[in-house]
Amino acid sequence: MKAAVILSGCGHLDGSEIREAVLSLLYLDQQGVAVQCYAPDKAQHHVVNHLSGESEAGGRNILQESARIARGNVKPLHQLQETDADLLVIPGGYGAAKNLSTLAFDGASAWLEPEFTKAINAFYAAKKPIVAICIAPAVLAAALPQKGITLTIGEDSATAQIIEKFGNIHKVCASHEACMDEEHRIITCSAYMRDDALSNIAKGIEQAVSAAVKMSAIHSRHVAA
Amino acid sequence: MKAAVILSGCGHLDGSEIREAVLSLLYLDQQGVAVQCYAPDKAQHHVVNHLSGESEAGGRNILQESARIARGNVKPLHQLQETDADLLVIPGGYGAAKNLSTLAFDGASAWLEPEFTKAINAFYAAKKPIVAICIAPAVLAAALPQKGITLTIGEDSATAQIIEKFGNIHKVCASHEACMDEEHRIITCSAYMRDDALSNIAKGIEQAVSAAVKMSAIHSRHVAA
Repeated sequence: MKAAVILSGCGHLDGSEIREAVLSLLYLDQQGVAVQCYAPDKAQHHVVNHLSGESEAGGRNILQESARIARGNVKPLHQLQETDADLLVIPGGYGAAKNLSTLAFDGASAWLEPEFTKAINAFYAAKKPIVAICIAPAVLAAALPQKGITLTIGEDSATAQIIEKFGNIHKVCASHEACMDEEHRIITCSAYMRDDALSNIAKGIEQAVSAAVKMSAIHSRHVAA
Repeated sequence: MKAAVILSGCGHLDGSEIREAVLSLLYLDQQGVAVQCYAPDKAQHHVVNHLSGESEAGGRNILQESARIARGNVKPLHQLQETDADLLVIPGGYGAAKNLSTLAFDGASAWLEPEFTKAINAFYAAKKPIVAICIAPAVLAAALPQKGITLTIGEDSATAQIIEKFGNIHKVCASHEACMDEEHRIITCSAYMRDDALSNIAKGIEQAVSAAVKMSAIHSRHVAA
């Protein structure tokens, strides 16, 4: 089994949430799933000093920064084809809402990175499971509008409203649990949408990844039958 | 119980190895240990493009980059006192050998960051456990010379020779196992010294962290008795 992981930089204020990305890679590997990371090959929206929280001068490339998490093994997002993987994982962090989309600034009027929308829709159409973590479920809801998909971003009501505006359904979930939409094969967990203990966040991600691997195995047997 | 984690940037080619750092934080949290991260507040040796592997123009601050892993919760290394924590964890990555020391360039003639050497020696003198991961055991061997401490960096013979030159002992270990020196309370594991599966590397780190927590609990009982 193979998974594609879509990264959006390195650091939760301007890129992928590092811990969510690493734990996704860990739980995929523990399940025996081969992983390939992808990221857009373009400048990130801005650079944030993670000590002060202030944005600062200078630019960074999303693909190059994602390579810090991927240890160099990351491909440009436009190369991702649905046939390359059995399931898709999208860690959170502001990178999902600033680099893969403009959700952080524009809410329900957000622009979406076309490479991202294309990949999401290809995996969705092929009935392959998609895992989205933290704020990424809201970006996923924007990329798959009017589908009636049930997702969680924890309990943040403003973000939940964005999901509902895109014609999808929000469900309140704790950090340690995943929200499973088996009909649409979308699995989500809220992770660092709350500043919770890392061990709780890890449980939610582990549950989400395990569920996606199981769904993918069932799907493969259906296709083969 | 409290742990201090010493970071050296964000990305294995010019800072802390991200996965080793995140897994250290995860296993400490799973054991109920409160964590505070520390890093030197100064420019890192250089910036490496993690996609190409080439060094590039521009500077980055070690403390600010470490804050990406620490989600902002990182203090300057000079503030670390032995009384602040019960055990110490040092993830690897070239940051340990380029920012905390010049081991990557100078081998057994390496310069060591004085703030680092001071912290190591204070924890060692107080008989508090120290965990070092990947290349960090070699830097630790330099900070604690002529002690006859047994450490592992996997099986890299050139680095093992550096450890021996500092009057310490190298032991070959697999990625999934930790090397315990109970007499000196030093626990090491090789992690990404080999390009092994993340799940194997995680096992080594989990074993090292668990052992340190156990040693610390025993030490606390001795001190209290």
